[in-house]
Formats: sequence, structure tokens, C-alpha cells
Amino acid sequence: MYPLLDKIDSPADLKKLSLDELPQLCTELREFIIEQLSHNPGHFAASLGVVELTVAIHYVFDCPHDKLIWDVGHQAYGHKILTGRRKNFDTNRKHGGLSGFPNIFESEYDSFGTGHSSTSISAALGMAIASQLKGESDREIVAVIGDGSMTGGMAFEALNNMATANPNMLVILNDNNMAIDNATGGLSHYLVDISTSRTYNIFRKKATGLLVRKKISGDGRDSLWTKLGNSIKNLINHQTNMFEGLNIRYFGPVDGHDVRYLVHVLQSLKKIQGPKLLHAITIKGKGFKAAEENQTAWHAVGGRFDIHTGELLDKPTDVPMPPKFQDVFGHTILELAKKNDKILGITPAMATGCSLNIMMKEMPERCFDVGIAEQHAVTFSAGLAISGFIPFCNIYSSFAQRAFDQIVHDVALQKLHVVFCFDRAGIVGADGPTHHGVFDVAMLLPIPGMTICSPYNEEELRNMMYTAQLAESTGPWAIRYPRGRGSMIEWETPMEKIEIGKGRCLAEGTDGALLTFGPLGVRFGKALEKLKKEKGISIAHYDMRFAKPLDTEILDSIFADSKMVKVMTVEDGALAGGFGEAILRYKNDKWSSSKTEIKNIGIPDKFVTHGNVEELFAEYGVTTDVIEEYFC
Amino acid sequence: MYPLLDKIDSPADLKKLSLDELPQLCTELREFIIEQLSHNPGHFAASLGVVELTVAIHYVFDCPHDKLIWDVGHQAYGHKILTGRRKNFDTNRKHGGLSGFPNIFESEYDSFGTGHSSTSISAALGMAIASQLKGESDREIVAVIGDGSMTGGMAFEALNNMATANPNMLVILNDNNMAIDNATGGLSHYLVDISTSRTYNIFRKKATGLLVRKKISGDGRDSLWTKLGNSIKNLINHQTNMFEGLNIRYFGPVDGHDVRYLVHVLQSLKKIQGPKLLHAITIKGKGFKAAEENQTAWHAVGGRFDIHTGELLDKPTDVPMPPKFQDVFGHTILELAKKNDKILGITPAMATGCSLNIMMKEMPERCFDVGIAEQHAVTFSAGLAISGFIPFCNIYSSFAQRAFDQIVHDVALQKLHVVFCFDRAGIVGADGPTHHGVFDVAMLLPIPGMTICSPYNEEELRNMMYTAQLAESTGPWAIRYPRGRGSMIEWETPMEKIEIGKGRCLAEGTDGALLTFGPLGVRFGKALEKLKKEKGISIAHYDMRFAKPLDTEILDSIFADSKMVKVMTVEDGALAGGFGEAILRYKNDKWSSSKTEIKNIGIPDKFVTHGNVEELFAEYGVTTDVIEEYFC
Repeated sequence: MYPLLDKIDSPADLKKLSLDELPQLCTELREFIIEQLSHNPGHFAASLGVVELTVAIHYVFDCPHDKLIWDVGHQAYGHKILTGRRKNFDTNRKHGGLSGFPNIFESEYDSFGTGHSSTSISAALGMAIASQLKGESDREIVAVIGDGSMTGGMAFEALNNMATANPNMLVILNDNNMAIDNATGGLSHYLVDISTSRTYNIFRKKATGLLVRKKISGDGRDSLWTKLGNSIKNLINHQTNMFEGLNIRYFGPVDGHDVRYLVHVLQSLKKIQGPKLLHAITIKGKGFKAAEENQTAWHAVGGRFDIHTGELLDKPTDVPMPPKFQDVFGHTILELAKKNDKILGITPAMATGCSLNIMMKEMPERCFDVGIAEQHAVTFSAGLAISGFIPFCNIYSSFAQRAFDQIVHDVALQKLHVVFCFDRAGIVGADGPTHHGVFDVAMLLPIPGMTICSPYNEEELRNMMYTAQLAESTGPWAIRYPRGRGSMIEWETPMEKIEIGKGRCLAEGTDGALLTFGPLGVRFGKALEKLKKEKGISIAHYDMRFAKPLDTEILDSIFADSKMVKVMTVEDGALAGGFGEAILRYKNDKWSSSKTEIKNIGIPDKFVTHGNVEELFAEYGVTTDVIEEYFC
Repeated sequence: MYPLLDKIDSPADLKKLSLDELPQLCTELREFIIEQLSHNPGHFAASLGVVELTVAIHYVFDCPHDKLIWDVGHQAYGHKILTGRRKNFDTNRKHGGLSGFPNIFESEYDSFGTGHSSTSISAALGMAIASQLKGESDREIVAVIGDGSMTGGMAFEALNNMATANPNMLVILNDNNMAIDNATGGLSHYLVDISTSRTYNIFRKKATGLLVRKKISGDGRDSLWTKLGNSIKNLINHQTNMFEGLNIRYFGPVDGHDVRYLVHVLQSLKKIQGPKLLHAITIKGKGFKAAEENQTAWHAVGGRFDIHTGELLDKPTDVPMPPKFQDVFGHTILELAKKNDKILGITPAMATGCSLNIMMKEMPERCFDVGIAEQHAVTFSAGLAISGFIPFCNIYSSFAQRAFDQIVHDVALQKLHVVFCFDRAGIVGADGPTHHGVFDVAMLLPIPGMTICSPYNEEELRNMMYTAQLAESTGPWAIRYPRGRGSMIEWETPMEKIEIGKGRCLAEGTDGALLTFGPLGVRFGKALEKLKKEKGISIAHYDMRFAKPLDTEILDSIFADSKMVKVMTVEDGALAGGFGEAILRYKNDKWSSSKTEIKNIGIPDKFVTHGNVEELFAEYGVTTDVIEEYFC
């Protein structure tokens, strides 16, 4: 079925192929990825877009001696398949199986772990400098970064540093004019401008091809080549080039789907010392029609599909399902924005993932996709807030780690009314350790004036969003909620105000208390009911809603009650610095002589691996089993 | 003494002056700043460099209706003086006095608080979009940003977003080729390249001047002007321009010390709609010879000086003093690097402030100033570490908030051996709330595998640095120490290994225990001695050294001892999520039935204002008075 691919268990096998066999290998690799993904969902379109680049890089460079870093890393499936992981690729993203991202603990071919965007040039520069310091002359360092990732500030920081450090490294700009949604910003337009200057492109391609074919593009003449390219471009194109401005030698743009040509170009670039950038134009989803036509939908496929038609096979059932929290956010912000014209929506390149696209469609002028730029997203929101608007700034919890300083320095210190919606909080599942949103509460709790809440269910998310946008709800808010579905079928309830810092009693009880923060309350509450029914043990259940400010009235009533000897706290974030620990501190400060014992349930001091959410909760001890163990 | 300046209590007064009086006002403003700073130390050179820009901006724009944002903000003294704060400028940076940075709670003329770098364009863009949404046509938003700040990634994120958002705003690039140390990186060279192309500059200046004088540079013709400038530049200069590449209209470079010309240019720019950037060349420390000649030393002046000669008046006394912690770091890393060739030094633009310049001088090839780029600094260090080096990455504690995600995602998750040295941890004093390093321990504690320590004194800092670089000390380390001096005169002690996660007993005691983390241990230890001498109360003192891993042996011995009823923890960081709270959690997890009571001393849930360190510790309750109150 895959005559060439089946023989490749390492890049050494790949190098045995002739140049003329590479297009066929690319076809097979692409078909293999499509076939695998059709029954084992994962990131789809990105890997298809870099099939030729992947094959060409491993054909020309000598990994793992040479170092290859995939920015973000969800485009590395082809790389994994060619580097010894073809046979177990069906375990991709499964618990105990392959990681969906490059992982240094998984393979020596994964030079640097990724997951978050825009890190590759920094890491590559570190490796290139290290190589230089060791006096190595034969090691190549290659970073592959998308145009979306290039909008992340740290990529620019690294380019700026790379220009003066002058190490031997190659950055390949994989330009598909997409991040997950369409890439935004000046850089994006700028790259299109370069790429669409046809006259220049044809000339450049011909000139390059000629030089490569005539084998005159050795080290000595390459500077001529660069200069030629640059001056041609200046003259014909009147385009400016920021990379050249930064003193990085720029090559391209080249067709990222012409594998033979890519091999030629990379072989030439390998001979050129110093920092250099190759600009390759690719199509996200290349080779799979449905994905090429709807790149955002096919960025990551949620279920099985027909490999010929792209038809999704996991049909929605007739059984009504609770909505995803992200969609509750998306519909609710639109509903609120219709009534409150101060509300704006901000996302750093996650409009579809966080469902802000629902509001974006109806109110494009009040929504802002600022690019992969969490830091800027937060301070931009601060600028909007200080001007009287109420920005809802939606960032995935783990990506919000990028903006900790801006949350402290630009928003909280100035007491600005920004509503942060941290989607993908808690355990996210298959994306694994880079993407779990388990540090957010610990990060936010020390910030003075921050209101931190997490909804029990859809209705509560709506009420929290409603409350957060009221004029009297000043200062910064963080509403965190997980990936996936809630628990209410009929979720479009009328919204009402919640008192800030007030929890609610979901079940009365006399033998102890369960204090939950967020949607885990639903399943833990059910376990309490079972306990009552089966064993007659009566535990009170409080949905605390807020990690800050804490509901001290509830806490005081518990700690003052000498019969409440056992309290359990439950959260889906890190125990260190988390919700449960805040309750411990409150108890210690105010109720040091109370006899109440507290047990904190949450994520222990470990990085959580990948797998499905239930498996992971079980592995890290966040299961309702603890209810019976503790209270009985 | 200041005939013109004395009449200016607001920008309205400034506008009453004729254009021809402005140079004289600039002279007076410069003299006033020099005179004030000569007896009340503060940031010096930056404000002198923007005297003309400050006067021109307030002459042309109409603040506070127009919004003016000073990036970083330590160059805003002239702005403060011209906007109603001249008479109390002698309270600058003092407790209860003016803030050393723009502060929205201090004046309506301070449109946005700053302190950390590279935030201004994001905030300005937020304000400009807000203005656009409100349908305002008469409000100008101006951000002034240095070339050093421009290397910070979030400035690039904002430029990228600004290009497509197309709002009405002006960015003034204050290009002095300096951050605090010399600016580094490709951007820096690039800006010099533009600026030093003399042919082009003269032509551009003449052309611009001509257009302004002939009053033909109205809105309609300005596009011609821009195009003219760009094509001239392309033709004459063969320079590329990244700002134009990003679709932002670029003007300049102009002489940032020609106030009349600046007024002309700003008046013209005011008429041009859309996003635009003015590139002004200035000299940091302009007008004060000593500062112009040594810009890094005069970035912030530590003491009084002679306004004529620049001679420092606060002579070092003959009394030997303990060294600054930063200098212990600087000398010790050099000492270690001489013996361990794997050690490298990394700083994001703080080589002088953190004293890495000591090593840089002797081993320039092993030290890296990566620009104002904390995110990149950390992931670059990760790249070095994965290649076998041991990078010491020195970042001020509050700036390290910028790199939280990189510490988690690129270093800790991959268990890389990077030694973070967080200088300026705890209370920093006059720089105030943006600069206090009080959130670092809370930020780091939830990170799995992170070793977190803080030295009691100089000797301990040396031992921690020594231990951290040993091959067996794998994984990420954070060594945090405060601004200012330690407590040992004879500090150059032989270094020895500390057992990881082990504290030490400094005083035996039976009536309770004091657990300190970091240099506050010195003064609290002395208070214990006094207590013993005066009241006969015997409290054990443990210098815990590590917040993670905790010394459970010490803790177990205390919690197991029924006589140890009172324990106090002391730290100079936030109580929420801090060292003391970690001890509470340990006790709760393992010793829930222990009768030991714990009192945590540290920074409460408030942003700490500015003032001297002792005043601030007193204001927030971190004083040795608590010893007697608690243990007696």
C-alpha cells in the first residue's frame, strides 16, 4: 500500500531513495497521514502542508546530529512517521502513546519539545550558539516556523538576537497565510505582498534554479546570490524586507510543495554559513480537498472521516447533548454585547477555538483577533478598558501563562475592568502537558484585586459573564472553564447577577462539607448523593464559584461548626497555590483552633501527560472515589 | 532662576509661549531636572534625552484629551514637571510622593501607567481603537517608545496588529541606541543604518522642511510626501524599512533635539490619519556632559552629584560595607565559569544592573545580552542547556513575570538544567509597584521539578550558585535575592555544596520556631536573640534556604514536637501561594493533627507602593516587631 514509505524506519532509509522517488514518497506520506487521521483524530491540515518540506529536510540534513525544531509542533506528524514512529503512529495522542507534539523524551529526533507557539527560533539560536562555542563546524540547526507563529513577539525577539549573534542556523518560514484561523496583522499582508510579486518570484526562482544547477552557488558565490536577489527585489519589486533589514539573509519565496526543488535549495543553503531564512509558500491541508477548502475546520479534526470525500463519519446523535463551554461563551458574549455596547471581544488567534467567531460574524467591528500575541492581547485590552470599554479577552488557560506580567502590570495594578475568559482550563486531554490549563489559578491568586471564578455549569458561566460586565463589577475578572461539554441540555437560561465572592449551597449536610470550584462539582456532587443514599452519610455541598474573593461566610459557618470535622476541596488545577490552598490559608489565619480537617483534591506536583480527560483525572487522583474514602 | 518654566503649571501655560521661546524652555527644563536629580536621586539620562520631544509633544497635542503614553516611563520626568507636578517634584520616588513612573492614579496627564518595557504601543492601540469606536475624530493617541523597548516582542506584536487595525495613532521611536546598556540585536544595527545614511537624511530633512514650510503637507498631499520619502530612500539609501513593510507610515529620522523642527513635524503628522511612526534620534543624557559620556552609569544615579562637574558627592565611606547581592552574583559567576567551562551568562538587557558585566568583560564570548526580551532569554537558555551548557539566566524578579510560560513550557517540562538568578526579588524600594519582585515564589512553586532557593547572605548565595552548577544538580533552579546589600563584609568565602532541599538550624530553641526564607532571616534572627536575652524566650531559628523542595526533616521534627506550639514563617514575597503557604499545605497534608500553630509573615494581598525599603516593610507589616507580639 505504501511501497516506499513502508521501507522507511529512519532518515537513513529515506536517504537511500533517489531524488526522483521523493514525489512518490510525499504522496504516500500524505496518504498515510490522511488514512491515520481518518480514524484517529488529531491535528490534520498543518502536517499535510509540510509533507514536502519534511521529506526534503530529512533528505538533506542529518538528524539527530543536525537539530530540527518544529514551531508549535502540530505539523510534525510527517516528521514522526519518517523518524521511526510509523508503526506506532496509531497511538498518536492516546494515553501512553505518541505525543501529538515533538517531545524530547519520546525520540532523539525531536530536538526540542514544542506545543506553544513562537519558541523555535529562540531554542534554535541557543543550540546554534552552543554548537559554535563547542567549535563544531558540521552541525546544522533548522527551525521551521509558520507565518502565524511569526507574529508572536518572542519570535521577533529571537530574530533580533539572531541577527547579531551570527550563528550558523536556518529558519524556514512555512508561510501558508494561516495560523489556526487566518493569520492577521501587518506581517501577514506583508508576506503576501512579497509572495505575490509574480515577476520577482519567477525571476528569483529561475535565478536560484540556475545557480543550483550550474553548481556555482558554493559558499564563496552565495553572497553574490543573496545580493543579486536583494537588489533584484529592490529594483523590480520595490518591496522592503524586514528580515534583510535585521541582517538575516533571506531566500525565497519558494514553492513549498516542489520537493525536488526544496532539496536543491536546502542543499545550497547548507553550504552557506551564518543566519539565514528560507521563505516557503505552502498550502495548509495540501492534498486533501476538503481541508484545503476549509482550513480552519480541518486544523484539527474532532472525529473520524471518509478519506475520499472528507465526510465526517461520527454523525451527531439524536440524543440532545450539553453544549461545549466555548459555545456557551460565544453565544453569551454576543447576547450580552447586543445589550451592552461597551462590550468588545478580543482573541489572540483563537476566534474559532474559543467561539468568539459567533460574535465576530454579527459584530465584526467589535471583535479583534490580534494574532498569536497573548501579551499584546492583554495590554491592548487594558487600553480599551481605560477608554471606557469592557473587553472580554479570551485566552486558552495555558497560553495565558504568556501574559502573566501584562495581567499584573497593565490590568490589575491599574484596577482595569477587563474580563478574562480562560478557556481550556484544567485538563484538556490529548494535547497533553503543554496545553493543560492547570497553573492559572495559582498564577492569578496572588494578584491583588483579581476576581477569579469558575462556573459549575452552563447557566453559571452565563451568570458569571453577565455579572462580570455590569458597571459595578470593576477591576479585573478571570472566568475559567474547561475544554469540552458542560452538563445542561437546556442551557439558554435567563441571566442573573451573582453576588461577587459568594458561593451557593447545593446540598445541606451535617457530617462534613465538600467545597468545589468549577464543573468538577457536578460529578462530585453526584457522588455525594450516592453516598447519602447508600450509606446515609450527609455531606454538605457548596459550589464556591469564586477562588477569590473567597466566600468567608460559608467558610466561617463550616469552621465554626464543631460537627463539621471533615472538609474536602476539589479543583481541576494545581494544588500548589490553588483554590484549596487558599482555603487552608484562610482557615489558618482566622480559625487556627478549629478542629475541622481539610483534604485538598486537585492536580499534584507533576506535569500531566496526554490522554483522554477521564484517564488523566484517574491517573492523578482526581476521581469521585476519594469521596467515599475520605468521608466514610 | 527658571523664568519660563516657573510659569508653567499645565500644558495650557506651555502653549502660551511662542515657538521661539521653546529652546529656552528646554534649557530651563533640562537644568531643572539636573538640579532636582542632583539632590534627589532617580532615573537621570532618559529624561534629559527627551526634553525637546516632551516640550514639542505638549506644545502640539492637547493632553489629557489627547493621550500620551511613555513606554517604560522613566523618561517622563519632563512630562511630569510640565503637567502640574513641578512644585512637588522634589518628592519624586519618595514614600507618599510622586511615582518615578507615569501613574494613572497620580495625574490625568498620565494616560497609562508604565514601568515594564514595550507596553506602550499595545495600550495606545487599545485607546486608538476605542476612540475610533466612539466615533471621535479629534483625539490623538501618541506612544513614545525607545529603540531598546522596541526589541521587546510585545512591541512587535502591537506593531503587527496596528498595521491592519488602521487606527489614528502616532508612535514616536525615541532612538538613542541605548536601552540601559547599549541596545543589542539586529534592530539596533538596523536603526543605526537608517539613521547614519547621511545623504538620505539631509535630503529627507530638507524635503520635509520644505513641505512643512510651504504648508503643502496637508492630508491630501501627505501620501505623496510619504511615497516620496520611501522611494527616495529606496533609491538613495537602498535601505529596507520594516515599519513600512508592516504598512505603517514611516517618517524620519529627525533630530530629536531640534524642538522647533519637532513642533513643525508633529503639527504635520497630526493632520495625517492612520497609523504612523516618527523616528527621532536623541542622545541619552543630552546636555549633561558626564551623562552623555557614560550613559549606562547615568541611567539612574544612585546618589547626589555636583551639577557642574557631575562629581558624585556621596563619597564611599571608609567603613567597610557588605557588597550588593548583584555584585556577589557577578564575581561569583565569573569565578565559577573559570572552573566550569559549561557555564554561560545570559541577561535580557540588564548586564550592568545584574553585574553580569563583570563576567562579560573577561569572557565576552560566554555572555549573552539578548536585548529587552525575557521570553527569548529563557527559551534561548533552554536551547543552550539542551546542548550541554549550564546557562545562568539572570532576570529581575518582576521582569521574569514576562517569561512564566517559557519557564514552564521550555525549561521545566523538559527538565533542563537552567539556573535562573532572579535579582531584585522582594521589595525594591523607590521604583515601586511595577518593580517589586513579590510574585516570583508564588509563580514558581506550582512548577513541577523546580528548585527554588533564596540566600540568607552572601556566603549562601555563593554556595547556592556553586551547588546549582554541579552536574548532579539537574533540572531548573531559581535563586532569588533582593536589590541592595547583604550582611557580610568578608564575603569571598570558599564555596561549598549545599544539600538540595535542606535548611539549616541557626539557633536552637524550645518555645517555638522561626522559619525564614532569604535575607530577612538576618534581621529576624537578631530579633530572636534579643528576645532570648531580654525575656528568656527560646525560639529555634531555621534558615530554610529552599521553598521547593521543602526541608521535610526540619518540618517533621517541629510538627512532631508537642512543645513547638508556635511557628512563624518569614518571607519577602506575596503570602498568597508563597513559601509560608507551602509550609501550611505540607503541615495539612502530613501533620493535620499536630497542635503547632503557624503564623505567616510576608506581603499581604495589596500592591506595594514606592518608598524606601524599610518604610515599605513597616507599612506592610514585615517587621521584627511581630516576633515579640507572636512569641510572647
